[in-house]
Amino acid sequence: MASKSLDRFALPRFLLLSLAASLLLSPSHGWIPRRRPASSSAADDQLVYLWPLPELFRHGHRTLSVDPDLALDLRIPGGESLALSEAFERYRDLIFTQWERSAHRSYTDYDVNKLTVLVASDDDTLQFGADESYTLSVGGGESFSVVNGAAIEANTVYGALRGLETFSQLCAPNIENKTVEIQKAPWYIEDEPRFSFRGLLIDTSRHYLPVNVIKQVIDAMSYAKLNVLHWHIVDEQSFPLEVPSYPNLWKGAYSKLERYTIEDAYEVVDFAKKRGIHIMAEVDVPGHAESWGAGYPDLWPSANCTEPLDVSKNFTFEVISGILTDMRKIFPFGLFHLGGDEVNTDCWNSTPHVKQWLQERNMTTKEAYQYFVLRAQKIATSLGWIPVNWEETFNAFKENLDLQTVIHNWLGPGVCPQAVAQGFRCIMSNQGVWYLDHLDVTWENFYNTEPLEGINNATQQKLVLGGEVCMWGEMVDTSNVQQTIWPRAAAAAERLWSPREATSVGNLNTTVLPRLHYFRCLLNHRGVAAAPVTSKPAREPPHGPASCFLQ
Amino acid sequence: MASKSLDRFALPRFLLLSLAASLLLSPSHGWIPRRRPASSSAADDQLVYLWPLPELFRHGHRTLSVDPDLALDLRIPGGESLALSEAFERYRDLIFTQWERSAHRSYTDYDVNKLTVLVASDDDTLQFGADESYTLSVGGGESFSVVNGAAIEANTVYGALRGLETFSQLCAPNIENKTVEIQKAPWYIEDEPRFSFRGLLIDTSRHYLPVNVIKQVIDAMSYAKLNVLHWHIVDEQSFPLEVPSYPNLWKGAYSKLERYTIEDAYEVVDFAKKRGIHIMAEVDVPGHAESWGAGYPDLWPSANCTEPLDVSKNFTFEVISGILTDMRKIFPFGLFHLGGDEVNTDCWNSTPHVKQWLQERNMTTKEAYQYFVLRAQKIATSLGWIPVNWEETFNAFKENLDLQTVIHNWLGPGVCPQAVAQGFRCIMSNQGVWYLDHLDVTWENFYNTEPLEGINNATQQKLVLGGEVCMWGEMVDTSNVQQTIWPRAAAAAERLWSPREATSVGNLNTTVLPRLHYFRCLLNHRGVAAAPVTSKPAREPPHGPASCFLQ
Repeated sequence: MASKSLDRFALPRFLLLSLAASLLLSPSHGWIPRRRPASSSAADDQLVYLWPLPELFRHGHRTLSVDPDLALDLRIPGGESLALSEAFERYRDLIFTQWERSAHRSYTDYDVNKLTVLVASDDDTLQFGADESYTLSVGGGESFSVVNGAAIEANTVYGALRGLETFSQLCAPNIENKTVEIQKAPWYIEDEPRFSFRGLLIDTSRHYLPVNVIKQVIDAMSYAKLNVLHWHIVDEQSFPLEVPSYPNLWKGAYSKLERYTIEDAYEVVDFAKKRGIHIMAEVDVPGHAESWGAGYPDLWPSANCTEPLDVSKNFTFEVISGILTDMRKIFPFGLFHLGGDEVNTDCWNSTPHVKQWLQERNMTTKEAYQYFVLRAQKIATSLGWIPVNWEETFNAFKENLDLQTVIHNWLGPGVCPQAVAQGFRCIMSNQGVWYLDHLDVTWENFYNTEPLEGINNATQQKLVLGGEVCMWGEMVDTSNVQQTIWPRAAAAAERLWSPREATSVGNLNTTVLPRLHYFRCLLNHRGVAAAPVTSKPAREPPHGPASCFLQ
Repeated sequence: MASKSLDRFALPRFLLLSLAASLLLSPSHGWIPRRRPASSSAADDQLVYLWPLPELFRHGHRTLSVDPDLALDLRIPGGESLALSEAFERYRDLIFTQWERSAHRSYTDYDVNKLTVLVASDDDTLQFGADESYTLSVGGGESFSVVNGAAIEANTVYGALRGLETFSQLCAPNIENKTVEIQKAPWYIEDEPRFSFRGLLIDTSRHYLPVNVIKQVIDAMSYAKLNVLHWHIVDEQSFPLEVPSYPNLWKGAYSKLERYTIEDAYEVVDFAKKRGIHIMAEVDVPGHAESWGAGYPDLWPSANCTEPLDVSKNFTFEVISGILTDMRKIFPFGLFHLGGDEVNTDCWNSTPHVKQWLQERNMTTKEAYQYFVLRAQKIATSLGWIPVNWEETFNAFKENLDLQTVIHNWLGPGVCPQAVAQGFRCIMSNQGVWYLDHLDVTWENFYNTEPLEGINNATQQKLVLGGEVCMWGEMVDTSNVQQTIWPRAAAAAERLWSPREATSVGNLNTTVLPRLHYFRCLLNHRGVAAAPVTSKPAREPPHGPASCFLQ
């Protein structure tokens, strides 16, 4: 992390735990509640409306105006970064209205005219664990390190992108004087994520999501600093992705129009990369794969047994190898998800040629399940991928599972502690608290879920890569995917990014809820259909007329 | 309308009524249903997937490929039209994926390389009743008028915009060969709307909708060829709009951030104009105006009587005059909505100074209501506006209502027939069938609502300007506004655009439903969160995994 002396200016240090209590946003932040009694009459000027909270921040009490013609001063080896230039343009469009940007005013009318972005490396390879740290300083006077400007320092392009998001959240419209302002300046922020894997799953098999919609989801993820889109592409209902090696596979799509070409997939990966987001693809085997047989019926054990895939045929593994080889070209992320969940092997035993194959090998169906998973893993590892599997694989045969496997929890609590105690890495997605399709799960449930719960050994804690919220698609399509994801996914995003002590202490209703209201309204302002925070069940319509900040 | 000989090519003429019956889309249109029995096994190659249906169209049986580098050949007096150039760019982005546009292929690989747009006038004033007619020809061979290209002819920029939308709907991806194709070419389409007023109401008082969200709604309206956004800006709950003459009025906003500056309003008007959409603003008086008093309590008869506005004070009308004078600069549309609905005058009688004022004038509260409406109308007409009022004004005192008033129906059926029989113009919004917040109203109800029902006299029929679907905002905010509007608003949009005989005859399930499914999936593809067509109640999530085209 780019280091910077904290002694450079002598401002009071507001640490996270000092956030004072109030349900109301600060009036100086542009908020006056109308005709609704608040639980506290004192507005809270000490809450900081950043989501997720940075690791460390200090601020002052000045208000600075920001130039709609804000200039980017990019300092990076090689001089250029397309990702950063494009990101800067996107953020200018988010921070300023169109009319502000086209108005012609004088440069000297504003305190902040320039954003300096210093990046140590121009290597824009997006590797797992890429350094996302940054520092952000917003000055405005001679006592400050950055005079009349703001600066982001980062080791990588991806740290700088996170800093841009934070900078954009500091910029708030002052609608009365029609400028954008940064309040409580000067600012000094040092930030980096607590976990390197901060994921969201989407499911394009139960309902196809158009590429434009996936992009909308990725954009919104970047606002919450999530960094892994787990693309559950294929399941039993449909196979939408083109696989050049086996061109009949996407005959399993719902329709010819509900398909992704490999170019679509490349475009999604590229779009996400420019926002610092990995795409972790999933090909779930041997269960959840019925749709494969629409193009290649030989993959079904029989017409009466269309799931799991036929363990007895080499052809099955040839197809998996073909799919993974094709996908390796598209998905550069180091992790690849092989599923392995909810495998009911009963009909293997009732299919004569499979039963015979099992008998010849003196193998139980449970052993055949293990055989399948491990053989699929070998294909993935031979392609240079680290395999991820749902926790059933760990639960069923942990003793035979390759230690490099990443265990993906979902069934309930307690699995990550077991997995890391055995030396496995783990991702937490406990369905009781982090499945977005569970509409009875509130934002508080998402927020209060601690991935390190029950893991006290520091070495084992490091094996928890992070967590992922899951948006399964049975009851979700383009019409409602965003408001089912947001704002609850944002609650998990802060848990995964911000310091544990900042997210685990204090009264949620005073230190977190007003900020989450603010973030959901920010998402709305940016065109994202985030639902009212307090909807029960989730994504219910607002219960009546009111301000966004109170619903 | 630009006239063109129908004899120029000898293709079979498919008129609307000849659309054959099937629940399935044509396989040549890219659609194969999977594992769901259809009600008919014969795919329907004769349905035309355009929404709303054009007035007249013919087509052939050829398939043409469309160049992702499609060029615009704009022929217009003066040589340029920013609105059309920008629209062409937007439509290229809707028609082609990003990867198609960045691939480099040869010009000669495609049948359609150029879209010629001929516009008779470069006057881009958007007046009510502006000519929206156009013809669209798509050729591809020597027997056709336009060799290797397509042409739109229109009298106005706004007709050309409608033609661009239709052209974009003819272009469908062929995902297997990774091109965009126009099937059933050559095409010849002559089109113009049946009604000049095809409206959608949004309500930014019950919930504030960010400018970005209003723009999303406007974009989607243009896809359905709706042309009036009725902006119900203010109501009793909040007053979000800046009024320079009375700068305290927007103190009635929910919060400082939930406000529109006049620049925001200009931006919305300009954005809509570039899509051929009028903004009809509404300032609802004397009821539904409680929020005005947050800034100017004198507008309330008393602290106990905060609605309707104080009829007894000149100040009330000075404020209305100030608001309308300021708004006249922003909203060029010729109609202005003065509300006038649901006025409960009881508390006028219980407020001493108002009661005294009424007694001095020997006026009943009903007469005072009439006095208020007519005085507000005079302010609007003095500014050159045609006043629109909700039907209560007509119901209460039609004999004293200025004949130039446009009557806006909402309470039920039968009012437009009465209004036009008296010589008034009328807009139909019967709440039982065209209120989008009524979630029990199905797409069939919207589709089957005929604005000319009960009006048989041709002169009287001309007084029906059209209709409007209403998206009241009590239970609607950014999180769910789009899926509450779409696809039901599209059903009304076809009723208002297409010939009456095309929308009134035949079996809805065979001639309309598959096309509406297709249009809702097109909206999804364009990033609009349109809900499943058959959701009951409306905007319910999909009931389980399935293709977009079947839900």
